[in-house]
Amino acid sequence: MRISLINPNTSRAMTDKIGLTAREVAGLDVTIDAVCPEFGLAAIESHSDEAQAALAVLREVERGEAAGVDGFVIACFGDPGLDAAREVATGPVVGIAQAAMHVATLAGRSFSVVTTLSRTLGRAQDLVRRYGFAEACVSMYATGIPVLDLEAASAESFEAIAGTCERAVRADAADSIVLGCAGMTDLCEALSERVGVPVIDGVAASVGLVSGMLRMGVGTSKRDEYADPRVDVRAA
Amino acid sequence: MRISLINPNTSRAMTDKIGLTAREVAGLDVTIDAVCPEFGLAAIESHSDEAQAALAVLREVERGEAAGVDGFVIACFGDPGLDAAREVATGPVVGIAQAAMHVATLAGRSFSVVTTLSRTLGRAQDLVRRYGFAEACVSMYATGIPVLDLEAASAESFEAIAGTCERAVRADAADSIVLGCAGMTDLCEALSERVGVPVIDGVAASVGLVSGMLRMGVGTSKRDEYADPRVDVRAA
Amino acid sequence: MRISLINPNTSRAMTDKIGLTAREVAGLDVTIDAVCPEFGLAAIESHSDEAQAALAVLREVERGEAAGVDGFVIACFGDPGLDAAREVATGPVVGIAQAAMHVATLAGRSFSVVTTLSRTLGRAQDLVRRYGFAEACVSMYATGIPVLDLEAASAESFEAIAGTCERAVRADAADSIVLGCAGMTDLCEALSERVGVPVIDGVAASVGLVSGMLRMGVGTSKRDEYADPRVDVRAA
Amino acid sequence: MRISLINPNTSRAMTDKIGLTAREVAGLDVTIDAVCPEFGLAAIESHSDEAQAALAVLREVERGEAAGVDGFVIACFGDPGLDAAREVATGPVVGIAQAAMHVATLAGRSFSVVTTLSRTLGRAQDLVRRYGFAEACVSMYATGIPVLDLEAASAESFEAIAGTCERAVRADAADSIVLGCAGMTDLCEALSERVGVPVIDGVAASVGLVSGMLRMGVGTSKRDEYADPRVDVRAA
Amino acid sequence: MRISLINPNTSRAMTDKIGLTAREVAGLDVTIDAVCPEFGLAAIESHSDEAQAALAVLREVERGEAAGVDGFVIACFGDPGLDAAREVATGPVVGIAQAAMHVATLAGRSFSVVTTLSRTLGRAQDLVRRYGFAEACVSMYATGIPVLDLEAASAESFEAIAGTCERAVRADAADSIVLGCAGMTDLCEALSERVGVPVIDGVAASVGLVSGMLRMGVGTSKRDEYADPRVDVRAA
Amino acid sequence: MRISLINPNTSRAMTDKIGLTAREVAGLDVTIDAVCPEFGLAAIESHSDEAQAALAVLREVERGEAAGVDGFVIACFGDPGLDAAREVATGPVVGIAQAAMHVATLAGRSFSVVTTLSRTLGRAQDLVRRYGFAEACVSMYATGIPVLDLEAASAESFEAIAGTCERAVRADAADSIVLGCAGMTDLCEALSERVGVPVIDGVAASVGLVSGMLRMGVGTSKRDEYADPRVDVRAA
Repeated sequence: MRISLINPNTSRAMTDKIGLTAREVAGLDVTIDAVCPEFGLAAIESHSDEAQAALAVLREVERGEAAGVDGFVIACFGDPGLDAAREVATGPVVGIAQAAMHVATLAGRSFSVVTTLSRTLGRAQDLVRRYGFAEACVSMYATGIPVLDLEAASAESFEAIAGTCERAVRADAADSIVLGCAGMTDLCEALSERVGVPVIDGVAASVGLVSGMLRMGVGTSKRDEYADPRVDVRAA
Repeated sequence: MRISLINPNTSRAMTDKIGLTAREVAGLDVTIDAVCPEFGLAAIESHSDEAQAALAVLREVERGEAAGVDGFVIACFGDPGLDAAREVATGPVVGIAQAAMHVATLAGRSFSVVTTLSRTLGRAQDLVRRYGFAEACVSMYATGIPVLDLEAASAESFEAIAGTCERAVRADAADSIVLGCAGMTDLCEALSERVGVPVIDGVAASVGLVSGMLRMGVGTSKRDEYADPRVDVRAA
Repeated sequence: MRISLINPNTSRAMTDKIGLTAREVAGLDVTIDAVCPEFGLAAIESHSDEAQAALAVLREVERGEAAGVDGFVIACFGDPGLDAAREVATGPVVGIAQAAMHVATLAGRSFSVVTTLSRTLGRAQDLVRRYGFAEACVSMYATGIPVLDLEAASAESFEAIAGTCERAVRADAADSIVLGCAGMTDLCEALSERVGVPVIDGVAASVGLVSGMLRMGVGTSKRDEYADPRVDVRAA
Repeated sequence: MRISLINPNTSRAMTDKIGLTAREVAGLDVTIDAVCPEFGLAAIESHSDEAQAALAVLREVERGEAAGVDGFVIACFGDPGLDAAREVATGPVVGIAQAAMHVATLAGRSFSVVTTLSRTLGRAQDLVRRYGFAEACVSMYATGIPVLDLEAASAESFEAIAGTCERAVRADAADSIVLGCAGMTDLCEALSERVGVPVIDGVAASVGLVSGMLRMGVGTSKRDEYADPRVDVRAA
Repeated sequence: MRISLINPNTSRAMTDKIGLTAREVAGLDVTIDAVCPEFGLAAIESHSDEAQAALAVLREVERGEAAGVDGFVIACFGDPGLDAAREVATGPVVGIAQAAMHVATLAGRSFSVVTTLSRTLGRAQDLVRRYGFAEACVSMYATGIPVLDLEAASAESFEAIAGTCERAVRADAADSIVLGCAGMTDLCEALSERVGVPVIDGVAASVGLVSGMLRMGVGTSKRDEYADPRVDVRAA
Repeated sequence: MRISLINPNTSRAMTDKIGLTAREVAGLDVTIDAVCPEFGLAAIESHSDEAQAALAVLREVERGEAAGVDGFVIACFGDPGLDAAREVATGPVVGIAQAAMHVATLAGRSFSVVTTLSRTLGRAQDLVRRYGFAEACVSMYATGIPVLDLEAASAESFEAIAGTCERAVRADAADSIVLGCAGMTDLCEALSERVGVPVIDGVAASVGLVSGMLRMGVGTSKRDEYADPRVDVRAA
């Protein structure tokens, strides 16, 4: 099976990094296409950025669908364009925020989100509620570290993130930590060791979910809301 | 004061129609700019359409902001681009779904949404929950009438909509009806008379809300989430 | 149009003060009748007070309705008698807690309530939930300042309120502040400047909402719950 | 111990009837004072009626408190004046809607409310949510029978109520029925036999709850919200 | 009437202690059978313990039912086996967590749970939500005191519990305290005096609820979910 | 990796059937141990049965843990013993109700549960809410078919199930169907073809989730609630 891992920003370094993670956790029968748009934003850090990212994701899903890709991962923590992508795809489409939160609720009762800039917390809150995890998500923290600083995180950034994770465990009794940015994927293992509870990276989580769904033959329901919008519904 | 009424689709007829409604309910001190994008979609009827509409809205808000517009209305029932628009605008920004639901909860305990295609009901549900009206919204109905058929609604379409409104009142005890498309704005008065409960058009509702906010000096909070994303947050 | 602004306590000073605010934000076509009961309580600060205030409001709505008033504002933060008033009025009836919260959710994602005595927080919580804003309301603070001390607030009281508002913004990331007493109406502008986020006074907010509803022809739904109770329902 | 059973309407027949029920279910150590106001409404069937009833309840609680009554029951399904009464009473105060719903959730997972006029359903909904039973309450039905027709219910009224209860069990899988009016108290046993699931009368339920609380020494928390409002809080 | 008070652990001392409480608050017409399993766990402090306790409870309910017991109390704060017990019993079955929370919401708006080990807080949260009291429960605290240390609580344990109760009142504005372990039953009166708000012991609370239900003739609804599972449903 | 698939009833036929499904969807690197207790219940159809099943599951997890199993699936739709099993296991533990619901919310917005006996619907409701899917789950249906009739489902049973699935899609706009019993696993493919939306079997879903978690190195959080209860917490 073939999964398209869509980084909606133009950072090739980040695209390569998440491709690496994805391949490590994928089964032998899984091919990962790690892609990103040629033009667009270097980082997605606001609602305006997300609006643009949603279109970039949509274009990549259309391209993947045409190329016979089986399933899709949207590798940006705001899950931009998820609903639109589901209309175009026939197979499963999963966002990394969604995936990480799903796995977190299987690993324990509660989780905390540790993310980049505070201005993105509103979107994260919307997603938590939309996905049904308002009770499970006991806190959210912004580290103040911009996305692009995570391309190659400094020791200082690692400390800031690790410290925030530890605070969430101690102060909020979080059973696990959900990392709030695809760019943190390479820190996940070290953070997990440091913090002592499962630290969950949405890139890895989404590859597991999409490949699991493909193995059991479940794609996106094309019943009505997610039917292909390019088909004339009045003719149906 | 000057309010930009943004129709995210390219229909000039619909833009004129909603401009007419807006001017009728606006106070004498309010100027309405009814605008629509030059290129884009003729109708917004799916998540993919919404993704494109969000960008169109964002561009119009940027244009309006540069031109000294005081407040903005997003005149499409999915409220596309609302969060992004709030980042760019300094004054208030209100979507017509949001506005209609707010007014509905002031006119009674419960409301029902009567809209166009069933595939848009998911988005409407998301908005109802996001705005806090999950308990107030007692039902949602799709009439199956596409947006563009509402440019000049036939007697048949009017009957279909009116019948659906009556059903919502009778079966769900809805205190009022929220019209689920800007294109229904010119039917509102006739529907209200026919159905016997307040029938609420979001175009009129949003003009009232935005001008009321402007009169009391309340715009969009620029604290953090809705701060201008083009400003470097790290410098702040 | 003519709007009756009902202060349910007997303070003439407070009645005059809120009348002033209301006229400042009302359009040119709006006449404000600022009224209060001749006998009754000097301040509404408990459930027992609210029970008495509800009847006072009801009497004023009956009087206004007879005098041809178009819409009503209940100018006490507990919104006493709102449901009863809706039964008697044909036009819109809005409480100032309700109005301020509605506007707050249009100005940003989250708000905090800053009010008078801590014993009134329970009622405020009930209203927040009843109106659908449990997720938007991130905190509530009592300043400990009794209502009547606000007739002419001292510099000390202003500082206490301003400090509490700042705390809500800083500690709870509130996008805006909802003032929890009609008596704070004249502090709103200075607080807004001081705090740096929208500070919302329900008196001003409700005038905007009621006049907006009147302009679009929407009153209270008389379908069933809010039908006039003096009409024999069995005869209908 | 001595419990005041307050009927907020002026019907002596109904007051006697509920006194009878209360004494049947009370332990030997319980004295029931069944009281009603001398002047006021013959029936409570609207929000306006409730506003008036709240004051009547408050007066009776003040009178009972002065006379050394230990606990109070508000015997009207809207639980009018409950919060205000808690301020004045030192012992427990329970409304019959509250009591019936509490017992219903101990008798099974789900309940349905069967009440009088449809215009009272809004208030019942507010109470269900306020008490925390929104998930347990699977439906609400109005029979259209006015309160006073229940003073001495006809065979026809009994059939209407019984049929509605049966419908709730069949269509909504209600584990029990909550009777929505104190005036139905004398029908409870016959309904229970007919319908085959527990039919719960709030009058009986509240006597059990109040006397149980008194036996364990639990009254109303006077911490802050329910402290006596006649005490100067600033002096405390 | 005869009520079986089931302690699911094997501690005879604790069984005697809760029997004492139960008899003190029971009416003269109530016989209390305080029972515990002969073999099993000395304390219930984890989900694994609860799984075993549920079976112990079920066996005692079967035994009581055969012996003509009228109602049952499950005297362990996790309410283990409650749903299963309801299937087997014909009369009412109430858990002490459930009972204490019900009474707490009748004594004020808000309560806090003060319990033993932190690992039991998850179960307590599940119960709070299941019973509908998520809004009323403003906080939960674990004292770190194991169940068996409460057989005869030291002055130090009392201080730890009392201090935690005081903190909940001060920091969370809890109107009352729910004690999170049957073993705290003998501390209830002293805690109540110390803390100044109602401190609620589920053992006492449940005896009141069960006897109240029995007096009004309400048992467990045997409609479907709680019908006797040993009866062949296909034959019905 | 090695996953223990625990059927909590004693049916060898059903155990073999679910083992078959699990192996079909598992990757090449996954070994499935399909196990069931030697003594116990032939079918789990009530809360009493679940109480017994929970212990059976716990015993199998202890056995598997000792044998070096990496992760566990509880293959009964009530997810009996899930919390207890998480305490004992170090790797992930997933119930099939949980797994199916998680996958359903990734395949579309809404799902419906189609299950066996109506008496099990209460438990299913509890799980839906516990897992956060109350908004996503639009309906639940019982077919009235007992678990053991599914060992080798007749054409009649298939028709009953298929018809119910179709009803859920048509009447409730369910995007997918969650099968409410492990015994339906072999009908999943045929139902999916017949109904035209994803039909989701929890056995297959849970294998995907558990193996995905194992590949990314995420097990059960042993922080506090799910720490091994056999370890003395006071010593920690």
